[in-house]
Amino acid sequence: MRIIDLIEKKKQGFSHTKEELAFFINGVVRGEIPDYQISAWLMAVCFQGMNDRELADMTELMARSGDMTDLSSLGETTVDKHSTGGVGDKTTPIVAPLVAALGGTVAKMSGRGLGFTGGTVDKLESIPDFQTEIPMHDFFAIVKKHGVCVVGQSGNLTPADKKLYALRDVTATVNSIPLIASSIMSKKLAAGAKSIVLDVKVGGGAFMKEIHEAENLAEKMVAIGKANGRNMKAVLSNMNIPLGHAVGNALEIKEVISVLNGKGSSDLTEISLVLASQMLSLALHEPVEIMREQCEKALFDGAALQKFREMVSAQGGDVSYIDHPEKFPTAAFLHEIKAESHGYISHMDTETIGKTATMLGAGREKKGDIIDMTAGIILIKKTGDAVQKGETLAVLHTNRKDKIKDAETMFRNALSCSETQPEREALVYKIL
Amino acid sequence: MRIIDLIEKKKQGFSHTKEELAFFINGVVRGEIPDYQISAWLMAVCFQGMNDRELADMTELMARSGDMTDLSSLGETTVDKHSTGGVGDKTTPIVAPLVAALGGTVAKMSGRGLGFTGGTVDKLESIPDFQTEIPMHDFFAIVKKHGVCVVGQSGNLTPADKKLYALRDVTATVNSIPLIASSIMSKKLAAGAKSIVLDVKVGGGAFMKEIHEAENLAEKMVAIGKANGRNMKAVLSNMNIPLGHAVGNALEIKEVISVLNGKGSSDLTEISLVLASQMLSLALHEPVEIMREQCEKALFDGAALQKFREMVSAQGGDVSYIDHPEKFPTAAFLHEIKAESHGYISHMDTETIGKTATMLGAGREKKGDIIDMTAGIILIKKTGDAVQKGETLAVLHTNRKDKIKDAETMFRNALSCSETQPEREALVYKIL
Repeated sequence: MRIIDLIEKKKQGFSHTKEELAFFINGVVRGEIPDYQISAWLMAVCFQGMNDRELADMTELMARSGDMTDLSSLGETTVDKHSTGGVGDKTTPIVAPLVAALGGTVAKMSGRGLGFTGGTVDKLESIPDFQTEIPMHDFFAIVKKHGVCVVGQSGNLTPADKKLYALRDVTATVNSIPLIASSIMSKKLAAGAKSIVLDVKVGGGAFMKEIHEAENLAEKMVAIGKANGRNMKAVLSNMNIPLGHAVGNALEIKEVISVLNGKGSSDLTEISLVLASQMLSLALHEPVEIMREQCEKALFDGAALQKFREMVSAQGGDVSYIDHPEKFPTAAFLHEIKAESHGYISHMDTETIGKTATMLGAGREKKGDIIDMTAGIILIKKTGDAVQKGETLAVLHTNRKDKIKDAETMFRNALSCSETQPEREALVYKIL
Repeated sequence: MRIIDLIEKKKQGFSHTKEELAFFINGVVRGEIPDYQISAWLMAVCFQGMNDRELADMTELMARSGDMTDLSSLGETTVDKHSTGGVGDKTTPIVAPLVAALGGTVAKMSGRGLGFTGGTVDKLESIPDFQTEIPMHDFFAIVKKHGVCVVGQSGNLTPADKKLYALRDVTATVNSIPLIASSIMSKKLAAGAKSIVLDVKVGGGAFMKEIHEAENLAEKMVAIGKANGRNMKAVLSNMNIPLGHAVGNALEIKEVISVLNGKGSSDLTEISLVLASQMLSLALHEPVEIMREQCEKALFDGAALQKFREMVSAQGGDVSYIDHPEKFPTAAFLHEIKAESHGYISHMDTETIGKTATMLGAGREKKGDIIDMTAGIILIKKTGDAVQKGETLAVLHTNRKDKIKDAETMFRNALSCSETQPEREALVYKIL
């Protein structure tokens, strides 16, 4: 078998056999295929795509290229959740304990933030002493005892994806539905859960800007998971507006605690309920409506918060911060942005809001940058809200005094206003 | 400017500015752009193509990436010819002296053979002592005195094309009309002639198998040349059947001498007349019909042969071989292939015939292979000819006794027969 023949085949729009894909993925991992041939193949895939069978095979091969986490000792109720990433997307620290409180098993690996989106691991680390690097044996012990543990990705997870992603990043081949689907799902398959719920974000603050693209991606990922024996659901949800009111790590964890106290913002609470009830429905084989009712109850009767406390404690975190969120340190500079006229907020450029938070210190522009846990933005007004001149639209939190002026300009440019109230957009577009 | 943005732009089907193409070509030549980014861009071009303006700009930049031959001291009548390559295509040693005999100036660089096609430089080197590596000063002196000189490519010609071609060869991006057109035309622009006639071969023994592809390629190359101030013509000609009767270096030169004696086969004579009259028409600004008449005359009155003799002598070759072609040495083994039944030859797989000649020693399977000048095939019967059982179809010439049996099998497999006479195909499809 020769790689040039595989490139030619894909260029002409033919599909690969599993043997061909194995030759390719093994060659990539072993460093036997030069980068220039890999990138030519990746670009050919951008144009010709891959069919469901090819994608299922390739994703399995990518997952098996490194360590596979075997969660079978935890039983049949293991369930994972993946968000394609958004601004203010803090659902994992809400749904993980919520699902665990109701009998699901959440042995979860999460990522760090990059670019305009945040990462669950960074957010959790804003809780003093919270550990996200936990030896595998302890990880299993915590999940067995508490039903939940959320850690960072470790070990030799999907080296094929790491290699392909690094090349995609520099060859303009990131934005390809089959390549995105196989990249995400290879990590999910390797992470080992029996059931997986995908939260595919759509809109200005997400990687997928168009709903038909997002639906296409969701369908491909569901097909890959099912072909590999996993229970799958995908939720298409709105990312034209940041989720909740907080953007930034400690600020978001404080908002998480509010939701777990039954006092969170409606959009963040709703998407958490949707995701958690889908996860439980898959994991426990129960109707989703019944799971939804139980989730609502667990949020309002303190059961979910109690599970979160357990999880934080088990992972070494200081639970006094959960009981007294006012203990979280505050940034040195709190800068209010005031409305300059009356009207309604008609649109928020959500990606720009994410970038503003990064400028304030809340995110990474490149891998390895250090995050300021206290930095971020509290959004007082969001799309659809009426605004009076002089009212506070948002509060910037930062320790970078020199960035405040630029951040305010950037934030103001991200808002559009109108004289009439805009129509409310749906929060959840579709469930597949 | 960033290369990743250029890849993304081409991937999305936009065209590049000249500044972008200069950034790309300069980056390629200086080794500043990694191979994996070049190959991703090349694959994107395979799908999205390039418009005429982009192609003209890129080809000029590729030509200027290395040495440009300045032929302006030779006047306005300089004319070049390029064949996209075929089997038994020996027109250059015929048309170069023919055109020079009638007032055109042919200062020509030719290539060597690779794969199933031969190369003019190899063929000419079958004449004892014929020099194809000639210092630039002497090359100009020969052209000034005799109007013709045919040498190999030398110096630092189009390094951008060398680099791009080497990558295309291993990334399945050879077969792209704009990439082929810019590769060929960059070398032609760098070679410096004011007028250029392209012989675009179509059919089983050519790289372009389909006439619409060949026409598309011809149009692109003509547009590139015109945009760069050259007089351009392209001839689309048939390569479903080898040209003439000889395949193999010395065998072909003997056939060249026959044509120059006015005794050549009709197809080879005809295509030579078509190409030479187009070249002269461009170079001298005369009607092509009048040039055609003069070409016929020059072939039959010995003027073209006399010019060939002058050229061979000026390039150090032994002209006694031109006067007495029987002096060319013959291979040790001459193996006749006899017809096994009556009928007509309905088709010849011309590429396979080229490969058979290579197997006998006449060509190179890879760069650097040594050629046996005496090896090759004399085709007695060609497509359309009637054949009686026991008649000789062809004679294999070789010094590789062990290859004769395989070569015969290969040759026989390349022939198809029928009971009725097939229709004659056109020799020239179109002139653009």
